Amino acid sequence: MDDELENGNLRPYVDRPRTFPNMRNKAYNPLIFRILMGMNVRVLLILLLLGFGVIFYIGARTSPIIVFVFSVCIISFLLSIYLTKWVLSKDEGPPEMVQISEAIRDGAEGFFRTQYGTISKMALLLALVILSIYLFRSPTPQQESSGLGRSTSAYITVAAFLLGALCSGIAGYVGMWVSVRANVRVSSAARRSAREALQIAVRAGGFSALVVVGMAVIGIAILYSTFYVWLRVDSSDSMKVIDLPLLLVGYGFGASFVALFAQLGGGIFTKAADVGADLVGKVEQGIPEDDPRNPAVIADLVGDNVGDCAARGADLFESIAAEIISAMILGGTMAKQCKIEDPSGFILFPLVVHSFDLVISSIGILSIRGTRNSGSKSPIEDPMAILQKGYNLTIVLSVLTFGLSTRWLLYTERAPSAWFNFALCGLVGIITAYVFVSITKYYTDYKHEPVRTLALASSTGHATNIIAGVSLGLESTALPVLVISISIVSAFWLGQTSGLLDEAGNPTGGLFGTAVATMGMLSSAAYILTMDMFGPIADNAGGIVEMSQQPESVREITDVLDAVGNTTKATTKGFAIGSAALASFLLFSAYMDEVAAFAQEPFKQVDIAIPEVFVGGLLGSMLIFLFSAWACSAVGRTAQEVVNEVRRQFIERPGIMDYKEKPDYGRCVAIVASASLREMIKPGALAIVSPIVVGLSFRILGYYTGHPLLGAKVVAAMLMFATVSGILMALFLNTAGGAWDNAKKYIETGALGGKGSDCHKAAVTGDTVGDPFKDTAGPSLHVLIKMLATITLVMAPIFL
Amino acid sequence: MDDELENGNLRPYVDRPRTFPNMRNKAYNPLIFRILMGMNVRVLLILLLLGFGVIFYIGARTSPIIVFVFSVCIISFLLSIYLTKWVLSKDEGPPEMVQISEAIRDGAEGFFRTQYGTISKMALLLALVILSIYLFRSPTPQQESSGLGRSTSAYITVAAFLLGALCSGIAGYVGMWVSVRANVRVSSAARRSAREALQIAVRAGGFSALVVVGMAVIGIAILYSTFYVWLRVDSSDSMKVIDLPLLLVGYGFGASFVALFAQLGGGIFTKAADVGADLVGKVEQGIPEDDPRNPAVIADLVGDNVGDCAARGADLFESIAAEIISAMILGGTMAKQCKIEDPSGFILFPLVVHSFDLVISSIGILSIRGTRNSGSKSPIEDPMAILQKGYNLTIVLSVLTFGLSTRWLLYTERAPSAWFNFALCGLVGIITAYVFVSITKYYTDYKHEPVRTLALASSTGHATNIIAGVSLGLESTALPVLVISISIVSAFWLGQTSGLLDEAGNPTGGLFGTAVATMGMLSSAAYILTMDMFGPIADNAGGIVEMSQQPESVREITDVLDAVGNTTKATTKGFAIGSAALASFLLFSAYMDEVAAFAQEPFKQVDIAIPEVFVGGLLGSMLIFLFSAWACSAVGRTAQEVVNEVRRQFIERPGIMDYKEKPDYGRCVAIVASASLREMIKPGALAIVSPIVVGLSFRILGYYTGHPLLGAKVVAAMLMFATVSGILMALFLNTAGGAWDNAKKYIETGALGGKGSDCHKAAVTGDTVGDPFKDTAGPSLHVLIKMLATITLVMAPIFL
Repeated sequence: MDDELENGNLRPYVDRPRTFPNMRNKAYNPLIFRILMGMNVRVLLILLLLGFGVIFYIGARTSPIIVFVFSVCIISFLLSIYLTKWVLSKDEGPPEMVQISEAIRDGAEGFFRTQYGTISKMALLLALVILSIYLFRSPTPQQESSGLGRSTSAYITVAAFLLGALCSGIAGYVGMWVSVRANVRVSSAARRSAREALQIAVRAGGFSALVVVGMAVIGIAILYSTFYVWLRVDSSDSMKVIDLPLLLVGYGFGASFVALFAQLGGGIFTKAADVGADLVGKVEQGIPEDDPRNPAVIADLVGDNVGDCAARGADLFESIAAEIISAMILGGTMAKQCKIEDPSGFILFPLVVHSFDLVISSIGILSIRGTRNSGSKSPIEDPMAILQKGYNLTIVLSVLTFGLSTRWLLYTERAPSAWFNFALCGLVGIITAYVFVSITKYYTDYKHEPVRTLALASSTGHATNIIAGVSLGLESTALPVLVISISIVSAFWLGQTSGLLDEAGNPTGGLFGTAVATMGMLSSAAYILTMDMFGPIADNAGGIVEMSQQPESVREITDVLDAVGNTTKATTKGFAIGSAALASFLLFSAYMDEVAAFAQEPFKQVDIAIPEVFVGGLLGSMLIFLFSAWACSAVGRTAQEVVNEVRRQFIERPGIMDYKEKPDYGRCVAIVASASLREMIKPGALAIVSPIVVGLSFRILGYYTGHPLLGAKVVAAMLMFATVSGILMALFLNTAGGAWDNAKKYIETGALGGKGSDCHKAAVTGDTVGDPFKDTAGPSLHVLIKMLATITLVMAPIFL
Repeated sequence: MDDELENGNLRPYVDRPRTFPNMRNKAYNPLIFRILMGMNVRVLLILLLLGFGVIFYIGARTSPIIVFVFSVCIISFLLSIYLTKWVLSKDEGPPEMVQISEAIRDGAEGFFRTQYGTISKMALLLALVILSIYLFRSPTPQQESSGLGRSTSAYITVAAFLLGALCSGIAGYVGMWVSVRANVRVSSAARRSAREALQIAVRAGGFSALVVVGMAVIGIAILYSTFYVWLRVDSSDSMKVIDLPLLLVGYGFGASFVALFAQLGGGIFTKAADVGADLVGKVEQGIPEDDPRNPAVIADLVGDNVGDCAARGADLFESIAAEIISAMILGGTMAKQCKIEDPSGFILFPLVVHSFDLVISSIGILSIRGTRNSGSKSPIEDPMAILQKGYNLTIVLSVLTFGLSTRWLLYTERAPSAWFNFALCGLVGIITAYVFVSITKYYTDYKHEPVRTLALASSTGHATNIIAGVSLGLESTALPVLVISISIVSAFWLGQTSGLLDEAGNPTGGLFGTAVATMGMLSSAAYILTMDMFGPIADNAGGIVEMSQQPESVREITDVLDAVGNTTKATTKGFAIGSAALASFLLFSAYMDEVAAFAQEPFKQVDIAIPEVFVGGLLGSMLIFLFSAWACSAVGRTAQEVVNEVRRQFIERPGIMDYKEKPDYGRCVAIVASASLREMIKPGALAIVSPIVVGLSFRILGYYTGHPLLGAKVVAAMLMFATVSGILMALFLNTAGGAWDNAKKYIETGALGGKGSDCHKAAVTGDTVGDPFKDTAGPSLHVLIKMLATITLVMAPIFL
């Protein structure tokens, strides 16, 4: 391959066997979906009621809070079914649109099937590894005293892992399933009214957001109550309720494992197709974006679905799961330290917060109406303003419900005002989320100074554009870090001063305060996810409109929606990093507790003045750099394959440019798909293998040098340094990418010479460089950070 | 300015008053140089002998080792005077060369004067701040018991700071002084023989290398022996010799303070001029590099001298000073713990290692002869091979002398085999240096895979070139981090197993082992610095040859030398980062000892599980990102000013392109100079102010929340995370920049379409992006890392 390119000439085309299945299949629906969709509604209802009856019975035996959580989740599932029915009832437009949409759907579902096939094989392998580790380790004294045997704990962890992986996969599938169906309906609606198109995109996004969040909540609730009933918790001689959350860690690891590969594979797919299509189409041939003559255009549109919808669904699913589990662990630990009689309020608090999240986000989603506000007088409404109005409503409601939940669950007679301090922690989190979103907007929206300066730098050429974009990205890390620092410190101190004291009389609520702030930050996650899903759906709709050559007025509507989608996508990423930072910090504390439990000695500090621990930190930060390198270079390599294929098609079928011949879209899809499946393995394996290798090596070194716990300490430092570097690197990559994208859009509005000028060409270079930054490496880092935290937690027994 | 650009048209030219002095002055020599150069050699000798007599007297009262160190330094100063005389005795070539050379010299010396004027004002201000801090703090009990009063310690610290700053300034000046004189002599010699040109460049580089290293060694030796005699160390009731090295910390801080601004200002100057000249000259007008028609060409050549020669001199000076001082502190601490009778061997060991460094590097430098080896049969010799031969000779000698020094100074009857373990530590350091150099070569030399892949990525456009370069840079951090990790861990364990035990019987030589490894790494620093200085001199010589329009054959010779210079420059940077990483880790230990001494309680751990400490780490890593952002954007902004000026000159003086009008070189120099002085302040101030602000804020927070030492702990975490992130970021920036540069050079050899092809244009974009990476932000980060370590050490009293 390389030789061929290096000599500068392409050999005659030889059809290489591809491992990827034929893309031109009939649209594929998993069996369960086909049965569900085909059934009579009444039969379905009865079956559902039966299933839920069992769950409710277990829930009722556990805690009334669980019953509340189940009820809310089920109501929101019903609402999400209503939203799908509503979206699917919309018309799909003229046949040419349907045809394009079907090609996208085939490609996306085909890729999804193969990708998740690979992922599930890897997950099964890893499950075996975990099983064998847990079967050979000795249980902690606590576990022994509670009668939780070695094999029980092994099966529990593996079952949780597999359930997490499965739910994460479903979350991804749901995101993609609805987006490949909504895109064409949005394009069709854009022919009638901007507002209707907006509403369809929002409701489709809302459907998957409710399913993703609801599934994270109900999955954990089911696991929790099943373990509760099965292990007969709180009867004498058995496990204590406060130790229960640690059994859920496998769920979080399963979720992040799948999310990592989903994000990597999807991210490489979407950006390799995008970069490849742009390089030949826009730059070499001078045809517009999404032009039907470009052989890679369908691959690009498929990429939006598998890269943005499916992957972001898995990402947020995993964020919420990790954050709920770590907060439950910390709540349990704190309740134990303070000897609170009924700790279940503290443990189940995160589930309740996210149940309210489902309620208030639904209200926010439904508040976006299909008809124009009667008060509005301007001829064109800004869709961003409409979405922002819904967001503001959700935020206000979240403050109210958050206060309510703290009073309900965190009130304890030992410290009567503690609930109020925790409510303030939640407020800190909500404000942090809001400020994060604003900072990201400031750095990536062309209404503000930074992107305009970047656009100006394009006027002196490609190189100054890149230098300015890199500087902008690096600089944009400062404010978010300051905000997150302030919120960690202030939430910690609000928690410390809550009045909760441990046996020795020391204040002890600090870490739980940080956990509550994280929940506050994620307390409107479903609405945020809706706004995020909106982006790729609108982008796809625009592509379909362009490809089916609709009139200019329709394109204008989808262009506006697409631009709004870019902004919401960028802001969600800021939000995802902020919550990843906080969640990792919480999981880190859980890791230290876990190590202490296994080692049967206190493990309270990770001392970076020890050379080996410092080395662990170095290796952790290096892991982030290397992972980012491999993610970016995977896109570069795959894009070059696309470029060569597209160039080949243009040479071999000269009629394409005059619309006389049809390009072979399927081949581009197949090339990108097989390449991205291949390329996702290397960075993914790096992320999973390196903490294990480092932990084991230093464990052995510690054994020979008489340094107990060395492996666990080095892994802890690795985790912390990787988290810090990962946050900064992800902020850099996401913001730089978003800013480049919007600097190009700003120039396309006519500034600095407008489309086609040299300045625009330089801006296109920046945009292309930013693609793998913001849609492959950046989001993969969010997942990586949390995956590292959960893998170290699950693998803790082998580090000591 | 921005408005003017944003509207896309340049207003009629208005002469703005510039703060920068007129560049067309008579060549400027500082008074002391003029006196020295003008004096009769005999008078000079007598004066020198008198001065040295005093120094020797003090030295002899301190330790015979100091006498040895003084003798070697003085011999090497004499050798360096011989080298200058030799270089200056070479002819300056035809008048057109002399004329160009004088313009470069004027520009460089003018900028240096103004830059160091600004820096010295800031240094005086900072000295006052340090003085007032030390006058108001309470001394440590040790200091009190030794009779070292508050004011004495304040004056000592400030005096050391100012001496360090002064020596660093002189080191920078010497580097530049010789390079602006050697450049024209190298170009002239290139008309006769490649070998002679090479020898002149090497000897000129050798001169400043010997002065830089010698001054670092003799400065510390003089301070040490003066304090020793003045404070009557080791008489009863006075200070102990093991506490003496801590008084030298001010020297290191002064050196790194000056080096930081020298590197920032010089780095911005050189790359803004380079980028600006290339963007209009090469890209827009299509004229070759260093063409006399380009108004910015003299500014570019001036930049090589102030950015590369002066700044790298200050950088390495400061590396060596920091490393010597931290190793002396650790040696003293260990000697105290092990109750070794005469600790001076352990304390003075680093000075002896660097004395031998002067000897063996001189041999290496002198081994490069002006005539061809008689055995060589090939018509053209590879200059890299010649330099490498000298390097290999130096390395072999350094292994021998290192072994000798350890046996001489580190032999103790308490642990008879300890010296051998420490000799092995030194070997680890020497090997680490060698491997580091090889890794950098692998990633930046176009003989190897990575740069070729990068060049190949240029064939699909600007964007894929940038993506591939960024990935390459990020990936290139992995191997050096692995190497440095292995060497830290193995040197630490060699030290631990040396047999040295503290009172409680625990092994205690580990940290000192790491220190010895660092010394091993730097044990051939003078030769490395020579190779580094060679680069910009050869680059400048090439520029003079091009501008004076010499025949093709002469250009070929300087082109080859220039290419070799690029490689040696890149490898020196790898070397500088490696030593910075190790030196910072050592200074970190010294910081913890210092805090413990002030707080009068043990301070042995920095626990990253505490939220505030974690936040300190976040802020430390963020500091690196923000600093890099500001350094890069400063270059971008200044380059845009140059672009506008050059465009203006081409429009207003259309005769320039036909050689009918002479461009106004001086104006470009003045613009770049005043802009870089302005731009260096922001990142420099950030680096100095942020640790102080963070430390004080958390000290106050700790006071109100009942958390003692919080400020000191947070600063420690900030320092560690900044060090780790700084190492990685610097590796990324330097390697990516070097690889882009050489990918372009590879294409210019005719590969992938050669000069002028689209592929070449994309590679030029990469090269330009890499300029601020590798010559501004990257090297500034080396200095920043060490500056942070010394500033926290000096400011330690205010954090608690």
